[in-house]
Order: sequence, then structure tokens, then C-alpha cells
Amino acid sequence: MTLPHNLQSQVKCITLRSQLAKMTSPIIIGVAGDSGSGKTTYSNGIRQLIGEDLVATIAMDGYHKEDREQRKISGRLPLDPDANHLDLLVGHLKDLKLGKTVEIPIYNHQTGKFDQAIPLESKPILIVEGLHALYPEFIPLLDFSIYVDPGNDVKWKWKWERDIIKRGHRAETLAEEMLKREAAYKRWLDFQKTDATVVIKVHESQLKNFDRFGLDSKIPENCQKIELIVEPALIPLPNVTLPIDLARVLEAKQPPFLLMAVPTTYWGRSVMRIHLDGVFSQETIGELESNIVSYTGIPIQDVIHDNLNFSEEKEDFNATQFAQLLITWRFLELVNYRLSQLQLS
Amino acid sequence: MTLPHNLQSQVKCITLRSQLAKMTSPIIIGVAGDSGSGKTTYSNGIRQLIGEDLVATIAMDGYHKEDREQRKISGRLPLDPDANHLDLLVGHLKDLKLGKTVEIPIYNHQTGKFDQAIPLESKPILIVEGLHALYPEFIPLLDFSIYVDPGNDVKWKWKWERDIIKRGHRAETLAEEMLKREAAYKRWLDFQKTDATVVIKVHESQLKNFDRFGLDSKIPENCQKIELIVEPALIPLPNVTLPIDLARVLEAKQPPFLLMAVPTTYWGRSVMRIHLDGVFSQETIGELESNIVSYTGIPIQDVIHDNLNFSEEKEDFNATQFAQLLITWRFLELVNYRLSQLQLS
Repeated sequence: MTLPHNLQSQVKCITLRSQLAKMTSPIIIGVAGDSGSGKTTYSNGIRQLIGEDLVATIAMDGYHKEDREQRKISGRLPLDPDANHLDLLVGHLKDLKLGKTVEIPIYNHQTGKFDQAIPLESKPILIVEGLHALYPEFIPLLDFSIYVDPGNDVKWKWKWERDIIKRGHRAETLAEEMLKREAAYKRWLDFQKTDATVVIKVHESQLKNFDRFGLDSKIPENCQKIELIVEPALIPLPNVTLPIDLARVLEAKQPPFLLMAVPTTYWGRSVMRIHLDGVFSQETIGELESNIVSYTGIPIQDVIHDNLNFSEEKEDFNATQFAQLLITWRFLELVNYRLSQLQLS
Repeated sequence: MTLPHNLQSQVKCITLRSQLAKMTSPIIIGVAGDSGSGKTTYSNGIRQLIGEDLVATIAMDGYHKEDREQRKISGRLPLDPDANHLDLLVGHLKDLKLGKTVEIPIYNHQTGKFDQAIPLESKPILIVEGLHALYPEFIPLLDFSIYVDPGNDVKWKWKWERDIIKRGHRAETLAEEMLKREAAYKRWLDFQKTDATVVIKVHESQLKNFDRFGLDSKIPENCQKIELIVEPALIPLPNVTLPIDLARVLEAKQPPFLLMAVPTTYWGRSVMRIHLDGVFSQETIGELESNIVSYTGIPIQDVIHDNLNFSEEKEDFNATQFAQLLITWRFLELVNYRLSQLQLS
């Protein structure tokens, strides 16, 4: 190293940010998945790690054709692509790619009605988040895509917590609605995962099975097992290692973790499946963390821990937080590749 | 580092070997498990990594009371502790601890008869390998203990391969014998695992489940999933890290692997469960390998790869080989602790 670490980070960060700011056409990320599947957790991760000032977000809810009252009468589900103005969004994305400002329609989950459209300026990075974000008409416009695919075990729990507790829906209505939409989900949404740069599968932690009597468990309450199905990077970023401390393992001081990586195929594409479960120490994550910070200039601890409100010991990361970092890292590989192309042209 | 690496290794190695050679009382390792469970794989790993000249081995088969002909008449199984001269072995171990030479009885698996007893000199490290090596009468004499506990999926396959192919037994006899002995195994052998420093569970690799069509699999044919249940070390050896190369993972160039560690309890004791599956690169194993070599002075590549005849690419390790290294490392922690006690006294 020729520069002190802090200074190095600053230099790289200024480079990335000033280069991104110079870009004439935005990098567009699509984030698809069912309602209540955790899309926001992952898009927030990227948004906050890249920096809010460089990122604009479009919630596709605004492009529904009908509001809640109208849907009650028509019986149509918003999962049906024909119940959405996808063509309007295609036009908006094309305009945003040209640097134009567009009027984004807004759906209000509290009232169930559309609010007034708001103007959205193009920014270097654009996140499109919604049920149909990876529909074929969007694919040519996307640079990076995420499909969030929680198992039914966590999906029902989350949806319940969000819609009943946060949004104040009636429990009977929700249960009925969720059963009704299962087949529709399979027909209209599920297939989008075949085209995603990263598919995120989420299940309850499997490490709890190893607690004999649940006494003195070192596994945090709200820990999930994350499986990332990742398309290999064209040009990977410089090497980052994840060191596992063997002495801590053999002293039984290491918190429980699972790390698995399997190169395989997924719906016809070559991918890497990465399984993460449990808790990863600062020591294991440190190099990845400092590399992301040196690219983005945003301190990770603030972002990840405030976002997920996980642990009082700030130095540990759960599988979800680790996954957010890996996805951000994979995304930075794309940004880096794009910037290098710009410099060549 | 103040010395070149080669020289450093040599210095440490001379220290460990000369210190071990000075020991007045041997360190005794017990290796228990069913017949055909792979005890030899793991005791060979330690024996060869420590160096044959420092290690003596006792096969407990010699302490059976009856030979094959006599067992056919009596119908007794060697799994019955009363069918073995365990008291004789206790006496032998006590004599060996005092530095005496003892006459070891030898059972010949080819002929099914006892050969002439042979004299065994005490050495710094003594391995006792057999069905009852962790029986309560041996526990006070053991410094380190291993219980090999393969699942039935691999156990039957191994036993078949060894007894039919290598030892030339009749297939019908073996199948009948194995069914007959299942309950006896549970009654007389299985409980010994509750007292082992390391329990080794072995199953077929689970990573193959991730191959969609078995095309282009990167998982070697004879790969097993190893679970080590390890009693924490009293005084761990200096820190060793296992670095995972993230760039190789995200490029899908990393061979498939699983690494999991869960602190939990096991039959009343605090332990660490470590799961290993697939292939580990030289980069991940490197530091552990060079640390073992610097303690023992024995090049690992020769030992492990000749022993298991695994791969043509010498730089990769499968889960069994990785487990051998971890067990040896855990054993070196004990040796180190013992030597430090000697220096204090």
C-alpha cells in the first residue's frame, strides 16, 4: 500500500462518485418479487450503500391500472400484467435513460388510492421495484436484476406482519387474498427468476436444528438462511477474501455460520449458488466491507445495522446483512465494468 | 517473520520432534468405531503427519478372545466387550506408559487366526485402534480420542468393498453378519461417542443434490460430507485462517464447497460441530497446511494425497482430507499443551 487506508478509500470513492455523476445514461436495476417478499430490504441495501443522492427509485405499484376499490369490483389481481401500465413504464425508463424528467404515478398503500404523480429526475443509478420489474419488455433496459424469492415459511409471516400490523388490513381479508393469489403468483411472477442477475431465496435459519434443547442458543432470533443464485461477473473486481478464524472455531467461540458455494446451472444458465446462514464475524466480513466502503465512501455499519436493526454487537453480521454486501459487491462489479467501458469509448 | 519460511519450519519441527522424543510417558490416542467404519483412514492421517518413527499403533483385533472358527461355534460377536481381553490391553497400556516393551497379540484377517504375538516398544505417541478403544476402562489412560461414526449409506458400502473385495469373504455371509450385528453395535459400541474428543460422522456428499442434470459436475466421484464434533481445545494453537476467495466464488470458478460451524451441546458436553463437504482449494487450506508442516516437518501433500489417492490436481483437498488436517491440528493443540506442561514441571 502506498497511501494510508483512509486516504486510499477517499481517493477511490471520489473517483467512483465523480465518474458516476458524469455518466450520461443511468444504470438501471430491476428488483422483482411478490408483494411482501422483501424487495425493499435488498433495494435499500444497495441504495444506501451507493448513496441516496446517486440513486432514484420507482415503485411499480403506481403503474397499477386499478385502485383498491376498483379491484374489489373487477376482481382482477395486480399480479396480472394486463392490470398494469407496463408500456407506460417502458416509456418512462426510455426517457430517463435519455436524461429526461418523467411524471411518476404513485399508489398510496394507506388509502388504497392513487396520489398525484410526482416528477422524477434521472440519476446515475435507477432502481425499478415491483411485481413485474423483470418482465420481458424491461429486460433490454436493465443492467442488473434481482428476483426476491422467499420460501412460503417466511413469506407468509412477513406479509402478515407488514399488511396487518403496519398497513392495518383485516386479517380475514389477507388470508383469503393470499390463498387466492398463490396460483396467480406462479403463473405471472415466478418465471421472472429465470432472467435475474441475482435470485435471493430466503428460508428460516437451518442452524437452529443443531440446538439440542434450545438452551443457550447463539443463533439470533430473526436469522434467516439466504441462498443467492448469482450470474458470474464478466470482469470480477479485485480479489477479496473471507477469512474464517480456525482457532475461534476450535475453541467453540465462533458464532454459528454456514457458508456454501456450488457452481451449477439454473434454468439453462451457469450460476453460482451461495448459501449463507447464521452469524459472520467482523473479521470474516472486514475485507469485503472495507472494499465496498472504499468504492462507495459510505460506512457500512451505519447502513446495514440501522436498516435491519439486528444486533447490539455491531461487529457481527447476520446472513441477510452479509447477502446485502455480496449483492452490492456484485453490483459494483457491474458499475466498474460500465465505467471502464465509458473510459474506453 | 525473521527467518525464511523453510528455515522456520525446520526450527519448529526440530523443536517439536526433539521435545516429543524426550517425553518419558507417551501421549495415547484412542480410535474407536465399528469394523469397516474408516478408523484407519483417520489414524493413518495422524500417524503419517506426525511421522511413523514417533508413533506406535495397537490394533485391538488381537485382543479378541476367540478366532473365526471359535466364533462360528460359540456364536459370540467380537462387538461384545466380554469377548475381548480388555483387561490385558489396560495392563499393556499401563506398561507402555512406563516405557516398557510389551507383547502384543495379533489377529490375522486373512486366515481368521491369531498370529504370534510381537514385541511393541513404547513411542512418544501411541494409537490404540479398535471396536472398544473408548471403553470406560481406557478413558483415564487416553489423552485424545476419536470416534468414527459413518452413516449407514457409506458404512455398508465400505464394509462390502473391504471385506468382499480386499479380504475375500463370502457376500452372503457378510450381509447376514451385518444385519445380525446392527443391534449389537448399538448396544456395545455406539455409546462410546459420548466421550470422544472428536466424533467423525461421514455421509455421501450433499452437494451433488445441486447438480440439476448431473452434467458437468465439479464434485469428485468419491467425495463425502464430513461432520466433526469437536471438544474445544484448552489452549488453542496460534490463529490460523481459512480464506475463501470471493472473486473465484463470484466468477463461478470456485469448486463446490460447504463449510459450517455451530457451537452446541453433544450428549451433555459443549462442542463445535463442523461440517465439511466438497472441494477446498490450496488457497483456503494453505495456512493450515503450512502450520502443520512447520510443527511436524512432514510435507502434507505426500501424506494426504498418497493416502487417499484423490485428485490429479494436487492443489485441491476434498472434505475427508480437510478433516484429517483439522483433526491433526486439534491433536497438535494437545501435544503443544502437553509439552508446555512438561516445560513447566
